[in-house]
Amino acid sequence: MNGAESLLTTLINNGIDVCFTNPGTSEMHFVAALDEVEGMRCVLCLFEGVLSGAADGYARMARKPASTLLHLGPGLGNALANTHNAKKGHVPVINIVGDHATYHVKFDAPLTADIEGIARPVSHWVHTSAAAADIARDAAEAVRQAGTTRVATLILPADVSWGDNPNGAEGAVAVAPPAPVPASRIDAAIAKLTSGKNCMLMIGGCEVSQQRGLLLSRIGQACGARVSTDTFPVRQARGAGTAVLERLPYLAEMAIDHIKDLDHLILIGAAAPVSFFAYPGVPSELTPAQCENFQLAGPHDDIDQCLLALLERLNAADTAAQVHALALPALPAAGKLDVHSVAQAVAYYLPEHAVVVDEANTSGLALSPATTGARLHDWLNLTGGSIGWGLPAATGAAIACPERKVVCLEGDGSAMYTIQALWTMARENLDVTVVIFNNRKYSILELEFGRTGARGGKPGPKAASMLRIDEPDMDFVALARGMGVQAERATTAEEFNRLFAEVMASRGPRLIDALVPTLF
Amino acid sequence: MNGAESLLTTLINNGIDVCFTNPGTSEMHFVAALDEVEGMRCVLCLFEGVLSGAADGYARMARKPASTLLHLGPGLGNALANTHNAKKGHVPVINIVGDHATYHVKFDAPLTADIEGIARPVSHWVHTSAAAADIARDAAEAVRQAGTTRVATLILPADVSWGDNPNGAEGAVAVAPPAPVPASRIDAAIAKLTSGKNCMLMIGGCEVSQQRGLLLSRIGQACGARVSTDTFPVRQARGAGTAVLERLPYLAEMAIDHIKDLDHLILIGAAAPVSFFAYPGVPSELTPAQCENFQLAGPHDDIDQCLLALLERLNAADTAAQVHALALPALPAAGKLDVHSVAQAVAYYLPEHAVVVDEANTSGLALSPATTGARLHDWLNLTGGSIGWGLPAATGAAIACPERKVVCLEGDGSAMYTIQALWTMARENLDVTVVIFNNRKYSILELEFGRTGARGGKPGPKAASMLRIDEPDMDFVALARGMGVQAERATTAEEFNRLFAEVMASRGPRLIDALVPTLF
Repeated sequence: MNGAESLLTTLINNGIDVCFTNPGTSEMHFVAALDEVEGMRCVLCLFEGVLSGAADGYARMARKPASTLLHLGPGLGNALANTHNAKKGHVPVINIVGDHATYHVKFDAPLTADIEGIARPVSHWVHTSAAAADIARDAAEAVRQAGTTRVATLILPADVSWGDNPNGAEGAVAVAPPAPVPASRIDAAIAKLTSGKNCMLMIGGCEVSQQRGLLLSRIGQACGARVSTDTFPVRQARGAGTAVLERLPYLAEMAIDHIKDLDHLILIGAAAPVSFFAYPGVPSELTPAQCENFQLAGPHDDIDQCLLALLERLNAADTAAQVHALALPALPAAGKLDVHSVAQAVAYYLPEHAVVVDEANTSGLALSPATTGARLHDWLNLTGGSIGWGLPAATGAAIACPERKVVCLEGDGSAMYTIQALWTMARENLDVTVVIFNNRKYSILELEFGRTGARGGKPGPKAASMLRIDEPDMDFVALARGMGVQAERATTAEEFNRLFAEVMASRGPRLIDALVPTLF
Repeated sequence: MNGAESLLTTLINNGIDVCFTNPGTSEMHFVAALDEVEGMRCVLCLFEGVLSGAADGYARMARKPASTLLHLGPGLGNALANTHNAKKGHVPVINIVGDHATYHVKFDAPLTADIEGIARPVSHWVHTSAAAADIARDAAEAVRQAGTTRVATLILPADVSWGDNPNGAEGAVAVAPPAPVPASRIDAAIAKLTSGKNCMLMIGGCEVSQQRGLLLSRIGQACGARVSTDTFPVRQARGAGTAVLERLPYLAEMAIDHIKDLDHLILIGAAAPVSFFAYPGVPSELTPAQCENFQLAGPHDDIDQCLLALLERLNAADTAAQVHALALPALPAAGKLDVHSVAQAVAYYLPEHAVVVDEANTSGLALSPATTGARLHDWLNLTGGSIGWGLPAATGAAIACPERKVVCLEGDGSAMYTIQALWTMARENLDVTVVIFNNRKYSILELEFGRTGARGGKPGPKAASMLRIDEPDMDFVALARGMGVQAERATTAEEFNRLFAEVMASRGPRLIDALVPTLF
């Protein structure tokens, strides 16, 4: 077998059986190998930012990495922003980046670039395969390095891909399990939790499954500590049957106020809370002066074991969790469409086991509170702050969970970074409903402009024109249809209700262009 | 003034008066400064790959760099592919990348990334401003470093932007002129050119202006050497009144054959010819064994002085150039639309001083020969091989040359990497005509699949599906209208002729979705 076949076989032997691709000439032997080796599902994307976001969404839902196939340095560059988001969310990805043949690099042909240099800032591990004989070992190492929380980037020169590999493929390798949290740290946490001081347990940087949320709630009930997620959980089970958890607010001023009385902030997976951006006169660290941050578990640690140990040490086997009951909101009254009426309709119609991908930004502020009593669902958040993640992540989530409805709640500005994802949704006939909050602004930037204090918080005419995306207005119905996705526009609450009810009851890719006013 | 105002003023004092932007929170003081400082035209793009390609197209036509405004590491990542293209073409760009406040970086907020690490592979110079007091000096240094051929990336922390700068702005700085070519190298070239051996002068890596082309032709006429451009000149004056120059073929096998008889290949700006990709059994270096590559001038050297010196040393003041006469092709006969009939219509209707941006890839093979006798025009080529450059470059070229018609000849696959450029064309009401060669394939990859020898040159069904972008077919008319650009579809030669004639005679952004069969 050649190097490409050896690589593919090794990935498949390790359960890596989805590859999001945008190949070029240097990857043609990999592409050819797809017909020689059984078992890899290749999903073509028209732009690499789509495929990297899809790999992120896939891994969050499949709980294992996808592979990607990228065309040299520029292809990896296009994938960089969403790979950044995956890395920040501790989501595993295995990038395969084609390169020129090893002997060809020195000639500096047009597509030659420092691929390792481009990869390093967004990867935990970067390696260039030197020979076809090494590729199986290198692929196995990439699987090991990616594990369940990391980005591994393997660079595959064309001659390594086409060269004969007498060593064949490698079998399944052992991926290191998450590290157990040492008893000393559990002891320290218990001491704080039973000290009578104000304590909060904050989980983040990892999936907040229904089970983990319930454990956390029981721990909180047993010792009187507040229990919370961080601002943007990677994946959170929400709705009926899930635990009642606080959520750290996004705005620094609100977050500071939210935790101002704490004496101990105990972090489980989550990092110590910091302001998303810096602002003149606002502290970067949000934890109050009298409070100690205690890192009980990191994102690579065994979160389940940690929670079970706490529960056991608190003798809380019989303590019940605080659980959300099913509580659907009233359908919005007839009339004006706004972010509140959209949120009510989403909450009302969301089917059980739906996956919500949230990149609605300012338009989404009403969504999270409105859906706490909706039917049981999973909610994915943007973890690295780089917009253009939602449509791709929804694509990947739908590949991972073909039996579940995926609902992508998407800002108009954010949508336009990776709008090409719609084509892959159509091509793969994915069961994704996209709701575009079309307010014709970078509304978050209008908000942030004020908060930075720039020009007294009031944009002048030139600045204001950089924050608006009207002139011309975008027509997302036309854009979606241009890529083969059925789409309709909603301008009233009744229209939105009717459309959203209809798409929740049917299958396949759909888009609703919801014309909403900005929230502010 | 604050740091942002100092930066803007320094750029404007140096003639850098266009900024292609996609700002975020960390850039809000820069955005605010636009209303405090006169003279910067800011062009908003919906995606950073659009703005980096626009900066490339702008600089090629304006013969000076634009600035860009990018949002931290991920924003720069999105700009990376087209910055790579600019760097490979020796096109100057000044990137301004916002970062967190200097004191905020250590908290590793979600958008924190190694910006310098991301910038380095695509920049000749990277610098992070440490304080508001330094920013004017740093901006002046960025202007100096970019010069006329390089990519300079200046990272602007938010507190440097908002901090008070008692030093004010800097005035115009001296940009180093291109280096003169030493007499010894001119001597060596003359010795080869007068040796009676087979010589070719190949120009590339720089603008091939009408004047430079004519000088080169006269040199060739005077000494009997062949005169050629490289495969993808950055910018070339073509059509009636320009010199007859050969062009090095793209396909390695054809290029090898084309120059197989040479004894001396004399390179002016151009690099020694190498295969675009490596293929099993095909040499990387295209120059034949008996031939010496001689680098007479590099891309940063003074090409005009070099050509004038050669002409003088050959005593060729009276030697005439070989010049293309105006020779318009017949309009294509009625019937089938294909790449040949499109090429004929383009050549027939192209107005004088049009700027052609060519990312038609396989569909463009007929275009270049068909337009040698068209009215005088400039032609821009993709220099770094990273597709998704054409629509952005056309956007930038139109900003640089508002009085000239820009014609963007674009493959369907390539168009989809940066389709968001259409919105900026509409917003700025740019006089750009986009022709999409819609063959519903990555046709170049079908060609390249065969050439790599993968699977005997014949893709299997899974591989074939990675090379096709039908299912669903894309409708570029809908996509363009969705972003406010008037668009029509052409399916016959008559339809294309009528539409193309109409758009050449009118102004403003237009798109023609030309349904053509693949060339192969």
